[in-house]
Amino acid sequence: MEDELQGYRGPARDLLQRAGVHVGDEVELALADGGAISGTLMPRYEHADDEHVAVKLRNGYNAGVAVSRISSVHVLGRARPEPTAAAQQVRRVKGDVIIIGTGGTIASRIDYRTGAVTPIFRPEDLYSRVPGLGEIANLETELLFNILSENMTPEHWAAIAERVGRAISEGYRGVVITHGTDTMHYTAAALSFALEGLPVPVVLVGAQRSSDRPSSDASSNLKGAVLAASRGDFSGVYVAMHRNLSDREIAIHRGVKVRKNHTSRRDAFESVNSRLAAVVDLSSMEVRKLTDLPPRGDPRSLKVKPRFDRRAFLLKYFPGMDGGVIDGLVDAGYRALILEGTGLGHVGAQVHGSIRRAVEKGVFVGMTSQCIWGSVRMTVYDTGRDLMRAGVVPLGDMLPEVALVKAMWLLGQGAGAEEMRSLMPSNMRGEISERRYIEDVRE
Amino acid sequence: MEDELQGYRGPARDLLQRAGVHVGDEVELALADGGAISGTLMPRYEHADDEHVAVKLRNGYNAGVAVSRISSVHVLGRARPEPTAAAQQVRRVKGDVIIIGTGGTIASRIDYRTGAVTPIFRPEDLYSRVPGLGEIANLETELLFNILSENMTPEHWAAIAERVGRAISEGYRGVVITHGTDTMHYTAAALSFALEGLPVPVVLVGAQRSSDRPSSDASSNLKGAVLAASRGDFSGVYVAMHRNLSDREIAIHRGVKVRKNHTSRRDAFESVNSRLAAVVDLSSMEVRKLTDLPPRGDPRSLKVKPRFDRRAFLLKYFPGMDGGVIDGLVDAGYRALILEGTGLGHVGAQVHGSIRRAVEKGVFVGMTSQCIWGSVRMTVYDTGRDLMRAGVVPLGDMLPEVALVKAMWLLGQGAGAEEMRSLMPSNMRGEISERRYIEDVRE
Repeated sequence: MEDELQGYRGPARDLLQRAGVHVGDEVELALADGGAISGTLMPRYEHADDEHVAVKLRNGYNAGVAVSRISSVHVLGRARPEPTAAAQQVRRVKGDVIIIGTGGTIASRIDYRTGAVTPIFRPEDLYSRVPGLGEIANLETELLFNILSENMTPEHWAAIAERVGRAISEGYRGVVITHGTDTMHYTAAALSFALEGLPVPVVLVGAQRSSDRPSSDASSNLKGAVLAASRGDFSGVYVAMHRNLSDREIAIHRGVKVRKNHTSRRDAFESVNSRLAAVVDLSSMEVRKLTDLPPRGDPRSLKVKPRFDRRAFLLKYFPGMDGGVIDGLVDAGYRALILEGTGLGHVGAQVHGSIRRAVEKGVFVGMTSQCIWGSVRMTVYDTGRDLMRAGVVPLGDMLPEVALVKAMWLLGQGAGAEEMRSLMPSNMRGEISERRYIEDVRE
Repeated sequence: MEDELQGYRGPARDLLQRAGVHVGDEVELALADGGAISGTLMPRYEHADDEHVAVKLRNGYNAGVAVSRISSVHVLGRARPEPTAAAQQVRRVKGDVIIIGTGGTIASRIDYRTGAVTPIFRPEDLYSRVPGLGEIANLETELLFNILSENMTPEHWAAIAERVGRAISEGYRGVVITHGTDTMHYTAAALSFALEGLPVPVVLVGAQRSSDRPSSDASSNLKGAVLAASRGDFSGVYVAMHRNLSDREIAIHRGVKVRKNHTSRRDAFESVNSRLAAVVDLSSMEVRKLTDLPPRGDPRSLKVKPRFDRRAFLLKYFPGMDGGVIDGLVDAGYRALILEGTGLGHVGAQVHGSIRRAVEKGVFVGMTSQCIWGSVRMTVYDTGRDLMRAGVVPLGDMLPEVALVKAMWLLGQGAGAEEMRSLMPSNMRGEISERRYIEDVRE
């Protein structure tokens, strides 16, 4: 039986027990000095003192309130209200949305003695940890695997794509995938390519702080993802994360136009070279589109193409780089090389010979920019044109990470050198913006 | 003899000749419909029509005005006023600031037939092309070399550092370096390390649009750089570029905390994990510090340490990366490997073996984050701690590009494995923020 005052001891526990409140309840703490603080009652960490009550405020931050300051505690709302007969009825039908767990911080707990975060995912935890989640949609959950996202590989992408494909043929109207944030944008790109003709929203979601931390974004991100997957009138692959530091708005990013741009902030993910797809307002529970998105479609239109070929390499150029590493990759059998060049898509003259050799040996060489924002444009300077003559293909404003994933996917579909040259720079899933940033290059 | 109405033909040329104005003059075009447009008269491109007059507006953008709309043209100010006797006197003394040319768009012209940009740098052009520049400071100019910045190598960094060192011993109170933008942030980092005890401001400056384009940022950036170098009451290495899309404010970024984050925008450079150092307001000609900066110092305190060792490699991790490339780099003799890991500083378990092998062979392995913003922190997850036990050194919030340059520089100073392990994660030139972003990681 779970302790409903997890972590509380001594005077703090006595106070809360007398008031009959549980962790997760909405509470108001009336203060001896006349004020009041309201929010969600949070659990206490192991080894926390026994003289404070932890409350998660509306703004997403945590307040520790000394027991000595509290005159009384009032319950404003219960974490887990008894379901009504009607709701019980609804819950018995098959779910609308499936949450597929793959691991990561969103499904992990922190060990406060060591500071370490350990992945733990029990689908049934979601209902207890995320109050109100079950009211948004009829949910099913499944743990596909449980790994930290830096350990994701193209084989994991394939497994997720296949599971999503099955979920759609099983009739789910939306799919949520919980995922570690480190490589979530790579996986989002992979699913975008592997799921052709996707008829429903597939929403990847992670957390920057584990779900038992007071400042965790796990619960709000998950709510936003479930709302987008169940109520969004669009299809495609998206990433749901905090739009800013408040808990109110969850940004819905297009899966081929998103990047993790901060190591630790809750709004670490940003749409790059693209507007946000949509925003979920957690106070009104509305899903608001910010741009045109493909509508939901016929489940039978889906083609799952889950094969990825690892023989693609993403190489970031730096001043003075020696061409030997490129020769080495070609000799090791790589079939595609995505360069992260400088500026509009340049690399130093000292590696041009190795690049020419790669192209001659049938290796696809594509150019992206390490600037992250903007588009490559290799016709402005002589050296860019030299590289294009050598066979390097400019990849527009496609993100380097997305270009790598696309190359792995095209190779996995059996694309040869000529197909790579024609398909890599062509927009297939919204990964390349049409003309948009070109106007920035020329006045 | 230069054509003072460059590119103008037919009716447009006739109108301007009658008014006695020259390219570069401040003009007001009175319009037939009663309005007026004022700005700087710009040259016309080859093959432009002969029925429009091009004016650069205050906001930095260009307007083409049809001759048929113009009722009269008035001169508001001349591009090159005759110097007064006093000014001529001042100009004869040795310059306060030296502009060292190294190439790039800021010193290039566009060929409007082909769209190609060709590097051209004649120091004497600066005075004619940048009205008012000679009034800001007593300038000397020197063309050190003239290359596109993607062709910069550590040897070029060394040559620039040596030339700056001589300039300071010659008595210059500030140094401006014109540079292509693609790798300007790498060079800024290199000079930051190579110039120890720098007593004056050294300001790198580039342009995103060549100086004969109407929307060029060359002139305003150069003015900002010269103002910072001559009037800034600080020392150190900085980058001067547009703060936003207006021509009014030039951002002064710290050389170890700046990155080119857009391929084409004029405000492509951003300070990362750091506030802007200063802003130059081109309307008031003020240099406004935004943070504490080291003051100017004694020229004799400068130690030039220009040696860089190329045996450092920057490797960006991606899902499924094979460890073979790391083995290959170690076997090729690289002495330092800077990893761009995911998130807080992670790489997949499949490359841990190769990393352990690299460390065992005496190669320095440092960890940065491909997120760009934020700090690595390898104690949060088990895998991070595993990597640290294997000998990987977390490099705080140091930018990957800066970490690479620092490794090349330390190796160039003869640092061994132990010195690399102690100096790479230590702040030497402001490249690592103290604690600042850690608070973002933990609540």
